[in-house]
Amino acid sequence: MQTAALLYPGFTALDVVGPYEILSRIPGAEVVFTAVEAGPVRTDMASLALTADRPLAEVTAPDLVLVPGGPGTQAALADPAVLEWLRAVDPGTTWTTSVCSGSLILAAAGLLNGRRATSHWIALDTLPLLGAVPTAERVVFDGKYATAAGVSAGIDLALHLAGRLAGDAVAEAIQLVVEYAPEPPYAAGSAATAPPALVETLRSTSLAVPAL
Amino acid sequence: MQTAALLYPGFTALDVVGPYEILSRIPGAEVVFTAVEAGPVRTDMASLALTADRPLAEVTAPDLVLVPGGPGTQAALADPAVLEWLRAVDPGTTWTTSVCSGSLILAAAGLLNGRRATSHWIALDTLPLLGAVPTAERVVFDGKYATAAGVSAGIDLALHLAGRLAGDAVAEAIQLVVEYAPEPPYAAGSAATAPPALVETLRSTSLAVPAL
Repeated sequence: MQTAALLYPGFTALDVVGPYEILSRIPGAEVVFTAVEAGPVRTDMASLALTADRPLAEVTAPDLVLVPGGPGTQAALADPAVLEWLRAVDPGTTWTTSVCSGSLILAAAGLLNGRRATSHWIALDTLPLLGAVPTAERVVFDGKYATAAGVSAGIDLALHLAGRLAGDAVAEAIQLVVEYAPEPPYAAGSAATAPPALVETLRSTSLAVPAL
Repeated sequence: MQTAALLYPGFTALDVVGPYEILSRIPGAEVVFTAVEAGPVRTDMASLALTADRPLAEVTAPDLVLVPGGPGTQAALADPAVLEWLRAVDPGTTWTTSVCSGSLILAAAGLLNGRRATSHWIALDTLPLLGAVPTAERVVFDGKYATAAGVSAGIDLALHLAGRLAGDAVAEAIQLVVEYAPEPPYAAGSAATAPPALVETLRSTSLAVPAL
């Protein structure tokens, strides 16, 4: 069972490392980090690079595709090499998935036409422009296409996928290994529960956190 | 405000990427990935490497130290270069912190003597052998020493730290940016809530998930 995690300049690290930490622990699973070219790929915060071990051209038959989001989404969804790779491997996947604004890339590749999908809350309104049906839920399954909300939602997505791929007992074991019993100290984690003024501030700064 | 995130062979990626995703978004903050030698450092799952941009010798005055855990902990807590670096920078930090079994490394450096600390549930019993007082909570503060439970608990720790460093409003903004409103599909995330048989199975396999 091979998962191909797509990297591109300006992706958000946790979008891909959260699911990786779950999916790589499924017995027999392999996770391959892949990008247009192999080598270090810088994240959105610049001080962190993840290494793509193989170029897209060498990853031809993944069972699961995982597309992260991030500020680099805009460039990635206009990159023919990325879109052509997604269109080429998708027919052979068991699951084609995304985290955060990664759903915009899947949609730009034409893979979410008419399908229910989620995204980072700031990107939800863009989904219909690319043919998908925006759905404000944390994890959305539509056929073999599974999408997660922003950044940290990839952990929840991956546990759902682990359960479907290897059974609930394996998914529960992995949840215990990574001690995923969250205790967020605030209730600001979604646009529905955060103070409305904060939602508007972040909308106006494109998610750059001001010194509040 | 500089955070130094320690990398060593066999660390667990999410232990450090979870907090990074929070701490790097504090206005004015810088996160430096550092290791005994600069360059790619392999995680515990082998298929992922993070890049250490600077060697320990060049990171002399961090405001916050973050030590991840992972199977590589055993080697790291016996590495004089790691322990000497921790002892050298700790007097100048505002916060000295760890995620998962990273608390064993802090304790081995003598920094948690007599202090309350947490760790991955499988490592809690080892803490007193290194002088710390094991505390089965998700995030534990004792003076300027803050420790988190296993892997994913680093996200909660980092939000607590963001609140203390930059105020609750900034921490809430960051929580909304990373859309941290967790919805775990199972309740198996802690040793207290998981099925007891599962806890024992993972204890006996040292956290290697069997094909259940």
